[in-house]
Amino acid sequence: MNDEDLSRFSINQMTVRQLPLPELVEACRDLGVGGVGLWREPVQRYGVEAAAKLVRDAGLTVTTLCRGGFLTATDPVERAEALGDNHAAIDEAAALGTDTLVLVSGGLPAGSKDLHGARERIADALAVLGPYAAERGVRLAIEPLHPMYAADRCVVSTLAQALDLAERFPAHQVGVTVDTYHIWWDDRAPEQIARAGAGGRIHTFQLADWTTPLPAGVLNGRGQIGDGAVDMREWKRYVEAAGYTGPIEVELFNEELWARDGREVLAETARRFVEHVIR
Amino acid sequence: MNDEDLSRFSINQMTVRQLPLPELVEACRDLGVGGVGLWREPVQRYGVEAAAKLVRDAGLTVTTLCRGGFLTATDPVERAEALGDNHAAIDEAAALGTDTLVLVSGGLPAGSKDLHGARERIADALAVLGPYAAERGVRLAIEPLHPMYAADRCVVSTLAQALDLAERFPAHQVGVTVDTYHIWWDDRAPEQIARAGAGGRIHTFQLADWTTPLPAGVLNGRGQIGDGAVDMREWKRYVEAAGYTGPIEVELFNEELWARDGREVLAETARRFVEHVIR
Repeated sequence: MNDEDLSRFSINQMTVRQLPLPELVEACRDLGVGGVGLWREPVQRYGVEAAAKLVRDAGLTVTTLCRGGFLTATDPVERAEALGDNHAAIDEAAALGTDTLVLVSGGLPAGSKDLHGARERIADALAVLGPYAAERGVRLAIEPLHPMYAADRCVVSTLAQALDLAERFPAHQVGVTVDTYHIWWDDRAPEQIARAGAGGRIHTFQLADWTTPLPAGVLNGRGQIGDGAVDMREWKRYVEAAGYTGPIEVELFNEELWARDGREVLAETARRFVEHVIR
Repeated sequence: MNDEDLSRFSINQMTVRQLPLPELVEACRDLGVGGVGLWREPVQRYGVEAAAKLVRDAGLTVTTLCRGGFLTATDPVERAEALGDNHAAIDEAAALGTDTLVLVSGGLPAGSKDLHGARERIADALAVLGPYAAERGVRLAIEPLHPMYAADRCVVSTLAQALDLAERFPAHQVGVTVDTYHIWWDDRAPEQIARAGAGGRIHTFQLADWTTPLPAGVLNGRGQIGDGAVDMREWKRYVEAAGYTGPIEVELFNEELWARDGREVLAETARRFVEHVIR
């Protein structure tokens, strides 16, 4: 493992959420990791300006901020609150110096069965948020989540759906997140990656492996790179063929990893990245 | 609730697996339920010929037999065993007098990341099984399973993929299963239902509702009709617009339902069917 191997590697903060932000920054420095994807909640706890200074002083690139979104409410008060919160997320992204805010679009409102309507409300919100983000140098990256989250977290389930939404807006406002965990099963995803790349809309590329059995609630079972069913090199080839040469972020939600020493998990993740993605 | 309301209703045996076959048959008679979808294991325990006589004497229509499949092994011995088992399943379907054998195609072999290869092995097996089934008056119904099962149960995740496989063979040999639980999230599914109908390939239509949170292992959390996110009437309209006028089978895997009195669950399921699907 050398600097070249890790030149495109970025660690998503959630992967090692047991590490407080200063320890994460220190561990990145020690391991030669140059990129981090941050999350709003731990950044807010540390203070947005303080966090921005910390990563800037350490010379780290903030590859993404996770996450905005949850834009599917029908209730006017809830919708206004969601828009306000997304404006704040865009401001935070700009303060942290990242150009990409990942969006988890939101599920169905309670009692609703209307997926199409929920997707249209996302588009309505993007029409407001896209220009606001672009003025601050931030691009919104719609993340299609695995279809198992369609009801309760994200009605955007495929790259095709994400692009159908994103393409209503300029690419410097709205693009997509390509995350192997959510799309690995989809035989249409490679052609959609090509479509996204042709439009300059691959705003971030994230990795997690698919392992089974899934845990209850299916949130925190994302596998360490190399432990599961996803051919990481193949997906890297797809995004590269589509023109993407940016950072590759590893984002794992995994109770077992969180129970371990965070520095050890970061080092392991970097090794797995080199072994299963780069070499 | 009257006979007309239930004229297309079929109860899948798994929904009330706590009922031994004779009790299921008796409960169907008492409630005016004319169709059952059977499963191989309980039928084998009772005896295939005895089960066939039981349902025939009760005047029940066996709408499907579940299930054949698991056709993705690479090991030659395992493949031969799988083919043998599927020949047996076809024979059992014929003995029970049903024209439809549902296929759960199988997941990735241990250590494999090759979804495409696994799907091609299914096609290879269908080329052997399709003619054998058709000679016995049985149609194979490829069931796309929700993408959350792609690694460990079924590499066929969408109706489009299922039809890509089925259309290599005559419709009287191979078609598809349309099950709301697996496809409700997919905005392409309505057009694929039309494609399936145009080709005479909707071999069965099954219902289950989508409820969250999903349980560990994600197998036994299928919601009672009306409890979840699926608009049942909408999916019924899609299959009917595609020309399907056959039985509508309710198939629920649900620990909470299995813990209750089976007759009560059957009666509730019939009521929910009328309330959320028919009226």
